[in-house]
Amino acid sequence: MPTTRTTLRRLPDRGDHRPETVRAILDEALVAHVGFAVDGQPWVIPMTYARLDGDVYLHGSVANHLLRSLATGCQVCVTVTLLDGLVLARSAFHHSMNYRSVVIFGVAERVDDEDEKQRAFAALVERMAPGRSTAGVRLPSPAESRKTLVVRVPIDEASAKIRTGPPIDDPEDVDLPVWAGVIPLRLTPGAPLPA
Amino acid sequence: MPTTRTTLRRLPDRGDHRPETVRAILDEALVAHVGFAVDGQPWVIPMTYARLDGDVYLHGSVANHLLRSLATGCQVCVTVTLLDGLVLARSAFHHSMNYRSVVIFGVAERVDDEDEKQRAFAALVERMAPGRSTAGVRLPSPAESRKTLVVRVPIDEASAKIRTGPPIDDPEDVDLPVWAGVIPLRLTPGAPLPA
Repeated sequence: MPTTRTTLRRLPDRGDHRPETVRAILDEALVAHVGFAVDGQPWVIPMTYARLDGDVYLHGSVANHLLRSLATGCQVCVTVTLLDGLVLARSAFHHSMNYRSVVIFGVAERVDDEDEKQRAFAALVERMAPGRSTAGVRLPSPAESRKTLVVRVPIDEASAKIRTGPPIDDPEDVDLPVWAGVIPLRLTPGAPLPA
Repeated sequence: MPTTRTTLRRLPDRGDHRPETVRAILDEALVAHVGFAVDGQPWVIPMTYARLDGDVYLHGSVANHLLRSLATGCQVCVTVTLLDGLVLARSAFHHSMNYRSVVIFGVAERVDDEDEKQRAFAALVERMAPGRSTAGVRLPSPAESRKTLVVRVPIDEASAKIRTGPPIDDPEDVDLPVWAGVIPLRLTPGAPLPA
């Protein structure tokens, strides 16, 4: 359900509020940029995250003062972006990027329930390598869990924004003698480096 | 020069304040996550950007209300993240990611000088394909420039944070029967799609 904050005022055809679109982007990306204000100062911190049902889970050390600020229940904006391509037009003005992004507005809630924390830890491992949380990895001990602050942000107020397709040049530019098109981009794994 | 905001309190050995480190990360990444508050609400918006000397340039439509808010000179946090790898440890607790990130704190300034705007436009095209701004692309007309709001953020208060290398497991976990190591990640171009 679009709200004032999640309704796109510009280029509204790029917006998509369907939960399945939002979830698919959240489940593909690996890093969220988490924004919040501390004493009026905006911070944007890159963080790993995991989605479980209708919540995004963030975590870090209990010694992390920014995460502790977040866990006090402040307003947060969680943004996730997948860069899909460079859009090279014949005019500088129409250069663009293809991307899929999600913006979530909400209030971060500290998670104290140990079962919920352990589910979040398992989900965080699963994101990096599916199946790994039950394949021999040692899950957090009580002491490790105590050292880890877990924060939940509900995906209640969220929107996706997507650009796909070729550049859209002005008709008078289409004969300019310069290549135009899309260079697809994809985050690609290299050969694993065993430790 | 580290300030209170750019001094890492946690894992300070991951911090790097050298301008050449900050610039190299800014010049490699393609998307910045720009955070600022509007009426107390934090926003984090993914944006393309270009660095020219000691400034980062952001741009968008003059009709974009968020960019207009930014151009009024509010406090901004510009964060850029390169994801370099998944760090798979034998314990969930020591899973991590390899990354290089930059955080810039500053005040956004609206750019009205037409020469400076055109330099920013050329730099934005160059980032997507080096050499392209002088290879036949039509640079912005006066009307297009008027439709484009350009904002400059000085890179005066900035820090980089970098994690590299293998997982660091606890000694008692190293014999667990699970693969551990790094899966390198890299944003890779695909075959160009001509328009």
